[in-house]
Amino acid sequence: MPYFDAASSAPLHPVARQALLAALDEGWADPSRLYREGRRARLLLDAAREAAAEAVGCRPDELVFTSSGTRAVHDGIAGALGGRRRAGRHLIVSAVEHSSVLHTAAAHEADGGTVTEVPVDRTGRVAPGAYAAALREAPGGVALACLQSANHEVGTVQPVAEAAEECAAADVPLLVDAAQSLGWGPVEGNWSLLTASAHKWGGPAGVGLLAVRKGVRFRTVQPADERESGRSPGFENLPAIVAAAASLRAVRAEAAAEAERLRGLVERIRARVPELVPDVEVVGDPERRLPHLVTFSCLYVDGEALLHELDRAEFSVSSGSSCTSSTLTPSHVLRAMGVLSEGNVRVSLPRGTAEADVDRFLEALPGVVAGVRERLGAPKPAEAEAAADPDPEPELVVDSLGKRCPIPVIELAKVIGEVPVGGVVTVLADDEAARLDIPAWCEMRGQTYEGERPAERGVAYRVRRRA
Amino acid sequence: MPYFDAASSAPLHPVARQALLAALDEGWADPSRLYREGRRARLLLDAAREAAAEAVGCRPDELVFTSSGTRAVHDGIAGALGGRRRAGRHLIVSAVEHSSVLHTAAAHEADGGTVTEVPVDRTGRVAPGAYAAALREAPGGVALACLQSANHEVGTVQPVAEAAEECAAADVPLLVDAAQSLGWGPVEGNWSLLTASAHKWGGPAGVGLLAVRKGVRFRTVQPADERESGRSPGFENLPAIVAAAASLRAVRAEAAAEAERLRGLVERIRARVPELVPDVEVVGDPERRLPHLVTFSCLYVDGEALLHELDRAEFSVSSGSSCTSSTLTPSHVLRAMGVLSEGNVRVSLPRGTAEADVDRFLEALPGVVAGVRERLGAPKPAEAEAAADPDPEPELVVDSLGKRCPIPVIELAKVIGEVPVGGVVTVLADDEAARLDIPAWCEMRGQTYEGERPAERGVAYRVRRRA
Repeated sequence: MPYFDAASSAPLHPVARQALLAALDEGWADPSRLYREGRRARLLLDAAREAAAEAVGCRPDELVFTSSGTRAVHDGIAGALGGRRRAGRHLIVSAVEHSSVLHTAAAHEADGGTVTEVPVDRTGRVAPGAYAAALREAPGGVALACLQSANHEVGTVQPVAEAAEECAAADVPLLVDAAQSLGWGPVEGNWSLLTASAHKWGGPAGVGLLAVRKGVRFRTVQPADERESGRSPGFENLPAIVAAAASLRAVRAEAAAEAERLRGLVERIRARVPELVPDVEVVGDPERRLPHLVTFSCLYVDGEALLHELDRAEFSVSSGSSCTSSTLTPSHVLRAMGVLSEGNVRVSLPRGTAEADVDRFLEALPGVVAGVRERLGAPKPAEAEAAADPDPEPELVVDSLGKRCPIPVIELAKVIGEVPVGGVVTVLADDEAARLDIPAWCEMRGQTYEGERPAERGVAYRVRRRA
Repeated sequence: MPYFDAASSAPLHPVARQALLAALDEGWADPSRLYREGRRARLLLDAAREAAAEAVGCRPDELVFTSSGTRAVHDGIAGALGGRRRAGRHLIVSAVEHSSVLHTAAAHEADGGTVTEVPVDRTGRVAPGAYAAALREAPGGVALACLQSANHEVGTVQPVAEAAEECAAADVPLLVDAAQSLGWGPVEGNWSLLTASAHKWGGPAGVGLLAVRKGVRFRTVQPADERESGRSPGFENLPAIVAAAASLRAVRAEAAAEAERLRGLVERIRARVPELVPDVEVVGDPERRLPHLVTFSCLYVDGEALLHELDRAEFSVSSGSSCTSSTLTPSHVLRAMGVLSEGNVRVSLPRGTAEADVDRFLEALPGVVAGVRERLGAPKPAEAEAAADPDPEPELVVDSLGKRCPIPVIELAKVIGEVPVGGVVTVLADDEAARLDIPAWCEMRGQTYEGERPAERGVAYRVRRRA
């Protein structure tokens, strides 16, 4: 069945599997030992480090293997903050970083540090000059800035080289989380630290990369450990490291051709979905984007139901909708972009995805969305807002308290036609997603969002009918 | 070639290999996703957790998988200290814990905490009542105590159940590092936290265990992460976890019979080595010990040369001698025991070790040791101390400054016969191993060690001839 969630975890690349099997036999011993099994393991480790460093574009002694991309981020940020403690305790991150970056930032704040979140535009992209501005306006000495190479939820590529220049001008190191892009190519620009995760490019789980350029101050916060230059404690996961390095080299060799091919399939989805499914917002930068990833949101749709129905139709995708998150809040990425989060679908194509599978997805999607909408009693396209007979009452209150996304938006859509043009609908809602989705609906529908205020229970969202 | 260093890393168990291969196909997806690949991964993860918890003797929801035994120790100790911050900041460890425990203790001290190291006897064992005494004499509130189940260098089994009782009486949690013993059986007694490492029992690298009993206060110090109850951040290394759990079950099924068999081989080494090689000290508790591990030290031998020659003879062993360590200090375990560290050899037999390989080792060892001794100009057995013609001068100074282990001891042995009984030899040395090995030599040789004092350069060690 078609698996379209490579951005969560890519299936194991055949080269990774092959290398892993070989290294299980050759690389199980302790590479710090002097006997032959140890020396053999050391050779494998050194070769893997050289291959990975070449792909990253750094020196082998600048790169260590960690146990995951998350650990690389945690320990990379903590080490850079520790090494620059004298410079200050301010950290700059973009608002759309991976949760591992934002959680490390939160831990830094809890520990007395300060953090700036650089905003993004509606495509999810950091503006040129935004890092320079954040550096200028920082409340104290800046220890570190972080910017992802490309966004994991909407595929937007960030201006890393520009941000790195802005940081270099202020003598502040830039850490780039390259988890989503490293399989497609090296990160350009003068970054200082870089993190990545092997299972995102088809390597095995259990391996991350942390590169720290010579000259960047770094102080490990972990207890002392002799492995991996003291930057990544614990016995080396050597078979997986060997597989990670081998598969990175392999996917890079195929990257240009496969990126071209997948970009075509993604373009097809980006173009066809809004034609096939009414009331859809395709999100993310239309040009500067990862080749394999596309995200869209469907009005009046419950994300969890949508994922479930797509799974029944044999398509595995993920979603940033609130109902698919354990915290019942929409994805922080969609929130920072200010785009619709309900009925959100992220399609990320693994290497080798068949064109026919994408076409089958495009065939299946309209029926699946329509089915979910029908069960939710969503307004039919062009029905809702065109209700012919407006209530003479120019103001209407919809009580959606206790109702979850997408119900508040559905109820808004159903009544907007009942007030005259210029009239107002106020939606009372206590679901967190409404805060994002009601303004997003207004944007999509050409209605005027007039803001929110606290109500006796929940929040009152005010929408003025414009058309 | 015979690999006798299972205590560093055991070769992959066939069941681990098989399970790993199966899980590469079935368990590469994100277990937190709702689609079928994710659900399948979740089932595998849950089953692995149940199997591991059963082997550990805890509830599945008390156990998380970490990326290594070292990480389990680091994060287990830090979490327990964090959770008991109100109770106090004192930490109790034994002097012979694994370096991961001692390094975490050092980090705790650097952070303002305090630490007691509980001493061991000459067999490497903590005395009954020693933890009770440490708890009584602690300078402040005790947050946590740590005791290994069995020592990784000399095989001595620790009185964990007794220590756990002593801790429970003081309402202090006990963390047991079970890395060396978990494959042989569950840890007895009322422990509170337990750590282990899969590659020690024949599982793959990249998997550790951390069990935290319900009711034990625990506060993760890592940034927030939704995986593994928030106690072990990063994408689950699922294929390796599945392999770890399957192989733990498999080695347990074979444990009783294989322990019996290996215990016989180890007994053979313990008995035969002192018969075959002169001037050897076999260390560790003779009875209460791991079934597969034996350690001995050879006087007048350079550990690195010995390992090298054994490797040439196709035997892979490890050593706690100073010359085999990157810091040029002898193993902290041998130091805490006060036993000879020079020419140290640890033999740890992997499961399935052939009797014939042990016999071949016993055949090869005497010649290898004799060869190393000859090249170092070591005194022949019964030659050195029996020198017929003592110098009339009752005091003699040997300048071994700048000379590395085992040279200072060799030079001492060569001249002791030159002073009359009752006379004194003073050895000037600046090699750290001399501090351990000169007293140990005196103990082995029935000479009187009279202590050390700082010299103009290095340290002066004073030995009085008794025989």
